[in-house]
Amino acid sequence: MRITIIGSGNVATHLAAAFKNAGHVIVQVYSRNIQNAALLAYHVKAEAIDDLNAVNEETDLFVIAVKDDIIGKIAEQLAKYQKLMVHTSGATDLYALLAFSDNAGVFYPLQTFSKVKEVDFSKVPLCIEGANETITTQLTQLAQDISQSVYTVNSEKRKTLHLAAVFACNFPNYLYNLAQQLLMQQGMEFDMLRPLILETAQKVQNKLPAQVQTGPAIRNDENTMAFHLQLLNHQPQLQQLYTLLSQGIIKLDIDERRAQ
Amino acid sequence: MRITIIGSGNVATHLAAAFKNAGHVIVQVYSRNIQNAALLAYHVKAEAIDDLNAVNEETDLFVIAVKDDIIGKIAEQLAKYQKLMVHTSGATDLYALLAFSDNAGVFYPLQTFSKVKEVDFSKVPLCIEGANETITTQLTQLAQDISQSVYTVNSEKRKTLHLAAVFACNFPNYLYNLAQQLLMQQGMEFDMLRPLILETAQKVQNKLPAQVQTGPAIRNDENTMAFHLQLLNHQPQLQQLYTLLSQGIIKLDIDERRAQ
Repeated sequence: MRITIIGSGNVATHLAAAFKNAGHVIVQVYSRNIQNAALLAYHVKAEAIDDLNAVNEETDLFVIAVKDDIIGKIAEQLAKYQKLMVHTSGATDLYALLAFSDNAGVFYPLQTFSKVKEVDFSKVPLCIEGANETITTQLTQLAQDISQSVYTVNSEKRKTLHLAAVFACNFPNYLYNLAQQLLMQQGMEFDMLRPLILETAQKVQNKLPAQVQTGPAIRNDENTMAFHLQLLNHQPQLQQLYTLLSQGIIKLDIDERRAQ
Repeated sequence: MRITIIGSGNVATHLAAAFKNAGHVIVQVYSRNIQNAALLAYHVKAEAIDDLNAVNEETDLFVIAVKDDIIGKIAEQLAKYQKLMVHTSGATDLYALLAFSDNAGVFYPLQTFSKVKEVDFSKVPLCIEGANETITTQLTQLAQDISQSVYTVNSEKRKTLHLAAVFACNFPNYLYNLAQQLLMQQGMEFDMLRPLILETAQKVQNKLPAQVQTGPAIRNDENTMAFHLQLLNHQPQLQQLYTLLSQGIIKLDIDERRAQ
């Protein structure tokens, strides 16, 4: 396919590279900032543009990988070209595009991207939604060119998926940060915790989290929990978080036992 | 060294195997339950016992890998043999042993173990504390036989480390569980989130968590956060958790900016 990339952020960068590697042609890369567009365009041998009126019409697909709040505005400007367009957001309804064109879909990669780190795209789950079955099929084929994990997910489910991703990625990363702060306060290095963090994520790759839950809360070890709260004496927000999460884990235990 | 293992749980099992693999002799394995003792003893070619009066005195070290609340009781019974003894707990003070013997230390592996999964012990951080410098040196050498990451950590710091491990391991695993529940409610599979979870943990292996924080809260994307809270409409505990964690992440952003 001939593909035009709208945006030059993390998702745009990784998707453009994956499409290019799979043999597709990246026609142009658009960014409001021409330097950002040029950087990505150079890597995928495309033309850089910073004006949506400069779009090359010889394209099959617009991939709109921009912030949620401007997806609609971009779609409105691209509608006149009457090409298939998709956005890449977990949080935005397909309707954001359908308001301007029926020839629309969603191409949501469920992964956390950073420009500094390569990602093996073949393992990135891609969540596809099309305005009709023909589009869904077309997008699914494109998705299968770059990933082994392709799912058809409607807008309602995708929003839940995006929320779940916040719990599975953004929140754990923040807890890693809190752990690192606790160590730093005592002059210890984050390196001590890195193997534990990795092993915790690896354990749930073939088990369910409830099956491998460890720690004082799941043992209902009240002495240790009381002592931990005492250690957090001067950090009331961390105490609140500790209590809330521990209560959840204790309840998990009860629920699990009931289920047996 | 000739080593006697007290306990047959996850830590006892993995430590005994690591010592054995490094060429040490496991003399005996003690458990209240002789079948559990026998199972582990078989794997490390040791004798199984279920009576602390049956201890073979030709040993150099007792490794007390039992629940925190019975460490003291075990130490009291082993003191008469006048051998070096260590416990393996993050949460318990060295004093739990010193109350009965000066010949004591701590050998705390900072990792989450499950019997079903092999662990590369060479990458497990080992936190060592000795009642005196001679013991610290001796335990450090033993630790270096089985791991490349050996730290000297006193009881006070170790307790903070244990608390930090709860934030870095037990709490993230619980959040994985919540994410899985959210997917399940909509008929989606946990497999969709597994690559994201692994990548999130891999990202902090050479970056600090604050450097790679993503998601609506760090962007202060109020629309998405409000929408997520609405999705959690009938789950007030998850709403509370979402709000508390998001507030922390937003504050992280402010703190980071101030630091620049």
